[in-house]
Amino acid sequence: MRLSDLSTPSLLVDAPAFAHNVAVMGEAWPGTTLRPHVKAFKSTSLARELAAAGHPAFCAATPREVLGLAAAGLGADLLLANEVLDGARLAAMASADARVTVAVDSEATIAAAAGAGIGEVLIDVDVGCLRCGCDPSVAGRLAELARARGLHVRGVMGYEGQLMMEPGATKEERVAGAMHRLLGAHAEVGGDVVSGGGTGTYAVNRWVTELQAGSFTLMDTDYGRLGLPFRQALSLWCTVVSVHAGPSGWAVADGGLKALGMDHGNPSVVGHVLVYCSDEHSTFAATDGGMLPSVGDRVRLLPAHVDPTVAYHERMYVVDGEEVLDSWAIDLRNW
Amino acid sequence: MRLSDLSTPSLLVDAPAFAHNVAVMGEAWPGTTLRPHVKAFKSTSLARELAAAGHPAFCAATPREVLGLAAAGLGADLLLANEVLDGARLAAMASADARVTVAVDSEATIAAAAGAGIGEVLIDVDVGCLRCGCDPSVAGRLAELARARGLHVRGVMGYEGQLMMEPGATKEERVAGAMHRLLGAHAEVGGDVVSGGGTGTYAVNRWVTELQAGSFTLMDTDYGRLGLPFRQALSLWCTVVSVHAGPSGWAVADGGLKALGMDHGNPSVVGHVLVYCSDEHSTFAATDGGMLPSVGDRVRLLPAHVDPTVAYHERMYVVDGEEVLDSWAIDLRNW
Repeated sequence: MRLSDLSTPSLLVDAPAFAHNVAVMGEAWPGTTLRPHVKAFKSTSLARELAAAGHPAFCAATPREVLGLAAAGLGADLLLANEVLDGARLAAMASADARVTVAVDSEATIAAAAGAGIGEVLIDVDVGCLRCGCDPSVAGRLAELARARGLHVRGVMGYEGQLMMEPGATKEERVAGAMHRLLGAHAEVGGDVVSGGGTGTYAVNRWVTELQAGSFTLMDTDYGRLGLPFRQALSLWCTVVSVHAGPSGWAVADGGLKALGMDHGNPSVVGHVLVYCSDEHSTFAATDGGMLPSVGDRVRLLPAHVDPTVAYHERMYVVDGEEVLDSWAIDLRNW
Repeated sequence: MRLSDLSTPSLLVDAPAFAHNVAVMGEAWPGTTLRPHVKAFKSTSLARELAAAGHPAFCAATPREVLGLAAAGLGADLLLANEVLDGARLAAMASADARVTVAVDSEATIAAAAGAGIGEVLIDVDVGCLRCGCDPSVAGRLAELARARGLHVRGVMGYEGQLMMEPGATKEERVAGAMHRLLGAHAEVGGDVVSGGGTGTYAVNRWVTELQAGSFTLMDTDYGRLGLPFRQALSLWCTVVSVHAGPSGWAVADGGLKALGMDHGNPSVVGHVLVYCSDEHSTFAATDGGMLPSVGDRVRLLPAHVDPTVAYHERMYVVDGEEVLDSWAIDLRNW
């Protein structure tokens, strides 16, 4: 199949860029030192590529991601890096054909995990992200409590999400501070695992035993600002459905808010200037000295945030130039 | 089923608020003078409620919405208020068990519609929205071209989207200006239909023969700012999964960017103050003098933009107080 045969809007993955990204990250974090975070791409097909590249242990944000990976035979070592109180979903994960570890950060989450038959946990520690994770001062007590409930405590996790977009000059020092909190908690908790980090800190976080990165696989324009050695592999393939010619003219592509995560701002239109997005459209203008396309032409939009973009779509098409090589179902959506 | 039995995050529709909204809009725009826009709710179950309330003609933004409505037996009069060049999708709509009218605004879109066997069109006219729609000066010529291609031209449409959030003082005058452009085009085009408008202009647009409104059914906090007589019927039901006690403490709900359209800004947390959203979480603080909830408590988030919020979900639960009355599949997602 050719690119021009695809209906629009369609999500594209540039195969050479994806392969480059996996190779670069695998060089820095080989084997199971990388625990790819499936929340960024929500696809067992993409996860299978990472497993084939030597990274068979995955990180997930939702029970459905864990259950989907397990059902796809990718359950060698799954970490749900999130707190869950839902007994039915915890029990489903406990009985899945997989090694499942869940994050806990309170007596209630420990009780829920133990009550549902979950076997292994990490103590989730707040390292400044203003999200889940206990205060480091109570991590040791929670680990004791978990062990008393029969849970195997594998170690700690702490996500320095607030530092992903931190500029280079201060990044290493601030990541060191966050990881100091995590290692302090680890000393109280014990276990082999110190899990954390992400695409934005992959080059400076030297303290975790495994990196929870996912965005590097596909990338977005927000991470693109950091100048990391990962390439923009994800784009939205659109048809130009309306053109207003003239010097103050505009054109309209058939992909908008319902095909793009918008919390990091507008997408970019390759070769043109975005004006605004609405539900099913992106209006754009010509660059200075550029030309508007014609009705029926195709354009590419580059998403500003990969995770909520992927979550809108049913599948991604893997392309190399004009050729469509494969189609990956985005089969881990919703909860 | 009780509200407390629902897994989270789940999208809720408050049944009394929804009924109120349908009644208020039906009073202003009875019968087929209202052409409810399914893009706002993407559910044939919700559409069926509107048909039962006397509004059997629908507006859609995607071929899949049209085909889904037709397959659900709701195809009495469907308008695809969008330009489509995809011959296969146009042919599928042409052969659906439904009366299908599509918007056209160029020679290319007329040729695509005629070539695929579509029978009826509206000439889409730009009324200042910077999106699809031809210049009014060429509307008559396009209508002639469409008729020459064997298409029945039912009239015109023009969406004054740029005026939906316009403040009250200038709204009526500016809508009058936009509709003057549309009526000028209509004089050249002919036909019975002048289609346009939306929830934000429902009270001041006296020129269209049918109103394309959808958001009024469920509402969002952005439309809520306008002080319209519609009630917030849509909310995201979440579980509090982590709490950091103390005076500068915070709590975390288990719904975030992948459950909420974010282009109109952050959601509101009922009874609390939102701090920020991430992929699967919303972090919030207590109000001045308020208390944080406990782990395991439930909270409601009110989305800022209904359309891209609904597009993330598989279903909505219809609730009245603590009782879950029904479940509506969001079966018109994607393209």
